[in-house]
Amino acid sequence: MIPRYSRPEMVAIWSPETKFRIWYEIEAHACDAMADLGVIPRANADAVWKAKDVEFDVARIDEIEAVTKHDVIAFLTHLAEHVGSDEARFVHQGMTSSDVLDTCFNVQLTRAADILIADMEGLLAALKRRALEHKDTVRIGRSHGIHAEPTTMGLTFARFYAEMDRNLTRLRVARSEIATGAISGAVGTFANIDPAVEEHVCRKLGLEPEPISTQVIPRDRHAAFFAALGVVSSSIENIAIEIRHMQRTEVLEAEEFFSAGQKGSSAMPHKRNPVLTENLTGLARLVRMSVVPALENVALWHERDISHSSVERNIGPDTTITLDFALSRLTGVIDRLVIYPDNMLANMNKFRGLVMSQRVLLALTQAGVSREDAYKLVQRNAMKVWEDGKDFKTELLGDADVLRALSAEQIEEKFDLGYHTKHVDTIFKRVFKD
Amino acid sequence: MIPRYSRPEMVAIWSPETKFRIWYEIEAHACDAMADLGVIPRANADAVWKAKDVEFDVARIDEIEAVTKHDVIAFLTHLAEHVGSDEARFVHQGMTSSDVLDTCFNVQLTRAADILIADMEGLLAALKRRALEHKDTVRIGRSHGIHAEPTTMGLTFARFYAEMDRNLTRLRVARSEIATGAISGAVGTFANIDPAVEEHVCRKLGLEPEPISTQVIPRDRHAAFFAALGVVSSSIENIAIEIRHMQRTEVLEAEEFFSAGQKGSSAMPHKRNPVLTENLTGLARLVRMSVVPALENVALWHERDISHSSVERNIGPDTTITLDFALSRLTGVIDRLVIYPDNMLANMNKFRGLVMSQRVLLALTQAGVSREDAYKLVQRNAMKVWEDGKDFKTELLGDADVLRALSAEQIEEKFDLGYHTKHVDTIFKRVFKD
Amino acid sequence: MIPRYSRPEMVAIWSPETKFRIWYEIEAHACDAMADLGVIPRANADAVWKAKDVEFDVARIDEIEAVTKHDVIAFLTHLAEHVGSDEARFVHQGMTSSDVLDTCFNVQLTRAADILIADMEGLLAALKRRALEHKDTVRIGRSHGIHAEPTTMGLTFARFYAEMDRNLTRLRVARSEIATGAISGAVGTFANIDPAVEEHVCRKLGLEPEPISTQVIPRDRHAAFFAALGVVSSSIENIAIEIRHMQRTEVLEAEEFFSAGQKGSSAMPHKRNPVLTENLTGLARLVRMSVVPALENVALWHERDISHSSVERNIGPDTTITLDFALSRLTGVIDRLVIYPDNMLANMNKFRGLVMSQRVLLALTQAGVSREDAYKLVQRNAMKVWEDGKDFKTELLGDADVLRALSAEQIEEKFDLGYHTKHVDTIFKRVFKD
Amino acid sequence: MIPRYSRPEMVAIWSPETKFRIWYEIEAHACDAMADLGVIPRANADAVWKAKDVEFDVARIDEIEAVTKHDVIAFLTHLAEHVGSDEARFVHQGMTSSDVLDTCFNVQLTRAADILIADMEGLLAALKRRALEHKDTVRIGRSHGIHAEPTTMGLTFARFYAEMDRNLTRLRVARSEIATGAISGAVGTFANIDPAVEEHVCRKLGLEPEPISTQVIPRDRHAAFFAALGVVSSSIENIAIEIRHMQRTEVLEAEEFFSAGQKGSSAMPHKRNPVLTENLTGLARLVRMSVVPALENVALWHERDISHSSVERNIGPDTTITLDFALSRLTGVIDRLVIYPDNMLANMNKFRGLVMSQRVLLALTQAGVSREDAYKLVQRNAMKVWEDGKDFKTELLGDADVLRALSAEQIEEKFDLGYHTKHVDTIFKRVFKD
Repeated sequence: MIPRYSRPEMVAIWSPETKFRIWYEIEAHACDAMADLGVIPRANADAVWKAKDVEFDVARIDEIEAVTKHDVIAFLTHLAEHVGSDEARFVHQGMTSSDVLDTCFNVQLTRAADILIADMEGLLAALKRRALEHKDTVRIGRSHGIHAEPTTMGLTFARFYAEMDRNLTRLRVARSEIATGAISGAVGTFANIDPAVEEHVCRKLGLEPEPISTQVIPRDRHAAFFAALGVVSSSIENIAIEIRHMQRTEVLEAEEFFSAGQKGSSAMPHKRNPVLTENLTGLARLVRMSVVPALENVALWHERDISHSSVERNIGPDTTITLDFALSRLTGVIDRLVIYPDNMLANMNKFRGLVMSQRVLLALTQAGVSREDAYKLVQRNAMKVWEDGKDFKTELLGDADVLRALSAEQIEEKFDLGYHTKHVDTIFKRVFKD
Repeated sequence: MIPRYSRPEMVAIWSPETKFRIWYEIEAHACDAMADLGVIPRANADAVWKAKDVEFDVARIDEIEAVTKHDVIAFLTHLAEHVGSDEARFVHQGMTSSDVLDTCFNVQLTRAADILIADMEGLLAALKRRALEHKDTVRIGRSHGIHAEPTTMGLTFARFYAEMDRNLTRLRVARSEIATGAISGAVGTFANIDPAVEEHVCRKLGLEPEPISTQVIPRDRHAAFFAALGVVSSSIENIAIEIRHMQRTEVLEAEEFFSAGQKGSSAMPHKRNPVLTENLTGLARLVRMSVVPALENVALWHERDISHSSVERNIGPDTTITLDFALSRLTGVIDRLVIYPDNMLANMNKFRGLVMSQRVLLALTQAGVSREDAYKLVQRNAMKVWEDGKDFKTELLGDADVLRALSAEQIEEKFDLGYHTKHVDTIFKRVFKD
Repeated sequence: MIPRYSRPEMVAIWSPETKFRIWYEIEAHACDAMADLGVIPRANADAVWKAKDVEFDVARIDEIEAVTKHDVIAFLTHLAEHVGSDEARFVHQGMTSSDVLDTCFNVQLTRAADILIADMEGLLAALKRRALEHKDTVRIGRSHGIHAEPTTMGLTFARFYAEMDRNLTRLRVARSEIATGAISGAVGTFANIDPAVEEHVCRKLGLEPEPISTQVIPRDRHAAFFAALGVVSSSIENIAIEIRHMQRTEVLEAEEFFSAGQKGSSAMPHKRNPVLTENLTGLARLVRMSVVPALENVALWHERDISHSSVERNIGPDTTITLDFALSRLTGVIDRLVIYPDNMLANMNKFRGLVMSQRVLLALTQAGVSREDAYKLVQRNAMKVWEDGKDFKTELLGDADVLRALSAEQIEEKFDLGYHTKHVDTIFKRVFKD
Repeated sequence: MIPRYSRPEMVAIWSPETKFRIWYEIEAHACDAMADLGVIPRANADAVWKAKDVEFDVARIDEIEAVTKHDVIAFLTHLAEHVGSDEARFVHQGMTSSDVLDTCFNVQLTRAADILIADMEGLLAALKRRALEHKDTVRIGRSHGIHAEPTTMGLTFARFYAEMDRNLTRLRVARSEIATGAISGAVGTFANIDPAVEEHVCRKLGLEPEPISTQVIPRDRHAAFFAALGVVSSSIENIAIEIRHMQRTEVLEAEEFFSAGQKGSSAMPHKRNPVLTENLTGLARLVRMSVVPALENVALWHERDISHSSVERNIGPDTTITLDFALSRLTGVIDRLVIYPDNMLANMNKFRGLVMSQRVLLALTQAGVSREDAYKLVQRNAMKVWEDGKDFKTELLGDADVLRALSAEQIEEKFDLGYHTKHVDTIFKRVFKD
């Protein structure tokens, strides 16, 4: 985790305090369930809840772990210091450490997913607002970085909205992938603990019981989770690249918001760097890099090996923290992106109407000119634009051969931008469904 | 694509013949829709269907492409050779090459997904059959490659079933991710073509219209598709690793089926290599390697660049063909896997009852022995087993201090395998839901 | 392998014919060495060379393999059909299949590396030529896509040269990584074959004997090989991205060569797409995707498992063929890249001298103006440029406060491009070392 | 960075204190060089060295950065607080932030590489010691996890030595890849700073001047660096997997050292988990995951974009810290690995001599028995071993048909382990070159 790329709410999910709190809840709920089953005395289960408002002392637990070399035992020892060692003697009975660790990890991932989902909803709101704002702001569409046909800035925002809306669905699916818990013992057979305990604990923690676990919860779930985050991050990169292109000096159709006070802004007004979206491009790589190790974590030996653990200690917090930060940063960028409609028009007209050459070509053939002749007509006028800086429409209007096929009005019509934007409403209805 | 790791049905999806057939259908359906809209004459639309039963001549199209340097134009030229050049003159009107290419690619991926889904259903059937067959076949559960507590072979199959059942869901989601088409023109604005054409073509091809496209269908969809395949392949690796472990000489709890006639089998009966599951381990890596480039493909420049194309020409066929082969091979391995229950028992008893030491420890403390004393009692008997090869239960039954806490009957009970398998039915009900 | 992205010489390395030829040479040289050692009769070794000019019949070998289910045995059987079954009876004696397969694979990789090295030398020659040609062609240097300070096109080519020169070194190291052979038997102990055989065969094939092998040559070598190719491909992407930027409509400082006859070039002169460099961007991803599976291939079980094999059947040919094609294509692009110096100047002047604002700021402070005042002076003139389209130098020359600190001559000097190019020769000497 | 997987010396390289110290040295040396060139007054250069023994106040610098939003400016401001703001006024003159940041990063990577190289030398020493110790400790070699032919534990260690020795070379090459510095200004043209400054600073810091840089040092260098680390980590995984296999219950040929006091060791002596090597398997994945983003970092836009930066803030420290920890942990594991030669023999004899069946087969054919007959002879005796648990050699010695071809002595000889170990010395000489 890099502090500068993190936000406190997500960081808190991964703090030792939160972890121990979740461990505590798992153990306490498990005791309740065991008491209900008559496996342990009700009084002992009740006693565990005495620690309900305790904030566990991480330093003290670390101290105990330094001796016991076992994190869960260290925690249980510390818990007994609060609950009383006799009262606590049934805590964790029949359970294996992974029951606690894996269920806790999934609680953390689920909470992380909730934040990411909320982040995404915030991003969608920003994208939608900007899409509506610029629904009719015409800019040139580009393929291969080369001018193609006009489109609108609203369509650009709308397609990012649609992409992120799919990512919202993916995040929800990802959340459900890892929203399971397991309290099933050393190899998953419930030999020493009743399945009812798992059911109770999961219900209390908002998880589904894992239908079949071994010592651990199967890791294909986590692989699917991190793969989904990788897709989301690639979409972030997609938007970031678009903005970086729009901000480059020669294009300048948009700029990341640059506060008035920001140093150097007015002595070098040309030097406003799209550092946020460049940063997002890098953050996308960081999120994405968790996908392969998460996939490699799936194939564990027999009922479990612990190779996945060190990977998850890293990618669990780092990937969710980075993605949370990235989504939030992107939302800010979108919210305050400065759009330059005039520059959009200027860019579109850079080659003085040449982007309409294909429409003119089509119109000529539809007017009965042979394909070869039509091509020659367009070509000779296009070349005057390209080489001598003439205006395409003006040239066409002055070309007698062209005028034989098309009226001045018809030629004018080929340069009408409304032709290109006539289905924008239709597309918006499809995307925003309202 | 490696021929030896491919199956004809999936290969056929990626043949030029199939591709041209799909292109043809896209163009023909588009003409129909345009005729319905009154944009082109009905007769011209009808004429295109004259080629309905034509098998397009790939060599001829290649020949034309060598001249035109454009694959779609080459195809259209060839189509006109069948339909008549006058009749064909409205084909592709208002469309851009990507309308055809992208929609076709998604048709191919959708069909590929259908095969993968069927493969997965076949694998699930095999896993379920073997799970039921070996529901009560006891074997030792292992964590860290070390004996832990007993489980059953049926549970092993059942957990693979549950994992692959999740993968079936992922494949279905993946299929829906890429089951869209787009006929929206050069930058996705429908400037030259009515959205109704897209709707008609998509309906005919079993796709949803892409709500908003640019020149291309957004690539987050494909990223999600290949990411899902990566998860599936990692689960294949997971099963493959389990079988490779079971077949290793010292374990020998299972073997890949080895036909009687296979050379060397009986002169070196110990040398039956798990080559199929080793191969599956490698194939999993091959499938997985498509995930990163698919993620890198998401961020295209503006309304499209063509960097994704060469990647997809490779991973489209290669990944689906390899995964199809792998799923099929794995199904065969599971179907015919030779299970050795006797070896399972022998392995479990390798340390003569020591795997039960934890149960004994627990029983002693529950019987009122202090934790320290209980530990010492277990330890001194365990050491006789470990160092002198004694039998654990026999030693316990001969230890007067132990017998003071536990009756012989109680000790015997701790070695009862039924204790470990008592919830197998419950788990099976969860997994197989019937 | 995608045929359109492949070149015959590299493809030939991976043909079955080449493979069998190499197998033959390994076996024949091994017989020679065994005869020298007196292990087999000289006559039998000599007899094997009878097949020296045979082109092995791939179909026939496949036919035999369909029966024997073993590729090396099938080949040996076919070889015996040429050499005579009695004469051939000592062929392969004491060897294991992997001795042939692994040594052959490394011969193929070595030859592939030779082609890649030659490709790189060709690319370097092109880069150097263009660097010298455009040593003094001034263009604006950009950070963050934003104009920074002037540089020259020659420096751009020179830095690509330097990067590719490092890649040449990496390719040479990569070649030496995999230029080893092993003829060491089933587990690498030379139990059934003398190490002298390995030495002889390796010497004849231009390889080093692997100091210690198991059944296979260790795969860290291959991992390092493919990792190096991944680095090379990322450098290809680096150059491709630069060119794609230069060709985008608003920049237009360079274009991929576009032959006069290429369709559409003159009717839509603005629509020349950088499709070759976009393609190279995708090919870079394809090459790079072999790195992870190659790394995953390193950890084999004990003296070998065969999980690496299916991976290598794919990435061996595909990665080298793709990289060869990419290097060749890039060389063509560089060789014929059309450079537009006028556009470079026009772009640099897009903001009428503002890129020099930092130099002016520095000059003012050096002339004794306080940092704050200097900033204000620059700012008020910069704003007139930015907002009203004035020329920066003109404004400065008309600003009395500025003129109090700097003479007109000094101001002029700040706009002298020679200031920025004065060390170009020094850098060229460092890069080209001549 | 995960604290539990880190060691202080490597962590210290990445502390803010170290970073600021390096920045200081770069700036101070640059001032010296500028004074030598007469560009700035000598007194000002000397003044900077007043801060030579200062430990920079990270909190204070952070405080300033909170205002200036720029890390290098914040540092320079703080430096001026020590040196005096007038004396410090030439510090950083003509330089760009990246000159400091990139050169510092490479100093850090170089130091990190030095630690990794020392780690590797330590590991090599441990591997060599254990190789010599177990040079003649016979164990079964395995292919596909199946018994093949005998080898020795010393050969296992020796091949890991050879692999890690190659990795030592790779680390040294990797170090030289990133041991460069650049002080070349905003776009690498040395417009505002003499190349002599770069040369001086680099010499003082033990770096080579980057022959040609832009605003940044080219990132192919860093890609090659992290790729090398990825290869090293895969070799770590290779050794880890071997040990995990050796420790699994059914094999038990080795165990990670388990201190006498470690809880649970003697009450459950069978339950010693190879947790260190499992952990190393996961750490290898963590190291490896930096390779792809490092490759993706190579293609920067024009003279630089800052997308690489966030990636490097993570993988710079995390990858080197993790690899350092992993190498150190592995060295400890190797140093203290408990080897069980008796179990090795017991495993080898698990199938009572069957592993020698191939030698017997060969001997029979060499003695003139036809291939078919030899096969049958071996097969019928092998089957008695496989199915009835007989001893292979005993059966052969009792088979009259076998005895017709081979004398009892010859049969005995086929079971001689010396046959398999006769070239161990030769191999050791190749590997250890002494």
